[in-house]
Amino acid sequence: MEFTIRAATLEDCKDISRMILELAEYEKVSDQVKIAQRDLEQDGFSKNPFFHGIIAEVPEHLKSKEGHTKVGYSLYFYTYSSWKGRAVYMEDLYVMPEFRGKCIGKALMSKVSQLGLAAGCSQLNFTVLDWNKSSLDFYLKQGCWDVTSDLGYHCMRCEGDALEHLAQGDL
Amino acid sequence: MEFTIRAATLEDCKDISRMILELAEYEKVSDQVKIAQRDLEQDGFSKNPFFHGIIAEVPEHLKSKEGHTKVGYSLYFYTYSSWKGRAVYMEDLYVMPEFRGKCIGKALMSKVSQLGLAAGCSQLNFTVLDWNKSSLDFYLKQGCWDVTSDLGYHCMRCEGDALEHLAQGDL
Repeated sequence: MEFTIRAATLEDCKDISRMILELAEYEKVSDQVKIAQRDLEQDGFSKNPFFHGIIAEVPEHLKSKEGHTKVGYSLYFYTYSSWKGRAVYMEDLYVMPEFRGKCIGKALMSKVSQLGLAAGCSQLNFTVLDWNKSSLDFYLKQGCWDVTSDLGYHCMRCEGDALEHLAQGDL
Repeated sequence: MEFTIRAATLEDCKDISRMILELAEYEKVSDQVKIAQRDLEQDGFSKNPFFHGIIAEVPEHLKSKEGHTKVGYSLYFYTYSSWKGRAVYMEDLYVMPEFRGKCIGKALMSKVSQLGLAAGCSQLNFTVLDWNKSSLDFYLKQGCWDVTSDLGYHCMRCEGDALEHLAQGDL
């Protein structure tokens, strides 16, 4: 299928916001999404952005049933391993259901890898939900490995009141 | 115990590098550390740094057996959640064994939380090894929660030849 992968711009935030919600619905957590178009515009496209994005786009004649030509995206940012140095983290990888099976997801992931290597990164990191077997199989087939299963890494989080207390030193 | 927490500077990279190795030895993976003082200087203290650091320092009269006054550190960087927005990631949190139990680790974690909140972050994220029960208990006691256990998040990684192939589109 004919498609292009390109860097996201401010004008893509509306479609990215739409697809973030579609992805959250697929992951059954759409009530968790607190980020709107304006947040993406501010956090990704001002000085010192918190993330970068790429967009998969199809030509007008291949647009989706609802008329969308922006049919997939990935958000990524640079991180650091104190053992291995520069790394790139893929926060999201999404392709609209009617455009799956056409290598668009692979092309997005390939682009993030290229950008990471060009920036001197030695690792691409991301997370996957353990019930999402089709995604997990896809990633394993690309040569990725499961750090949680193999080494026992657990993702930990502090937020809300607990984060406020921690910051205030109420320990 | 008397100690101060302050932002790390270029001159701290030698001690950070030493403590990264001490932490890796504790985690039984010192052979995995590929990062030296020069990498830290370049990646953390040039324009657009890949990470930031804070240092815990004791006065000269409390120095360690080997003569160190820099006795703990944390490395952190800003990330992004497409659901919740700005987040801070704590890559390392380390206090030298002879200085533990004096609230230095809590003070470092509190500082990272403060910096994250000041930057508009709503989450502090980090990883812990599942066999490291004392650390896990410490974090849970601070109100952190285990995203891997509770939601099934698995950390995934691509590196080396697999990352090169992915970038080349050899899919």
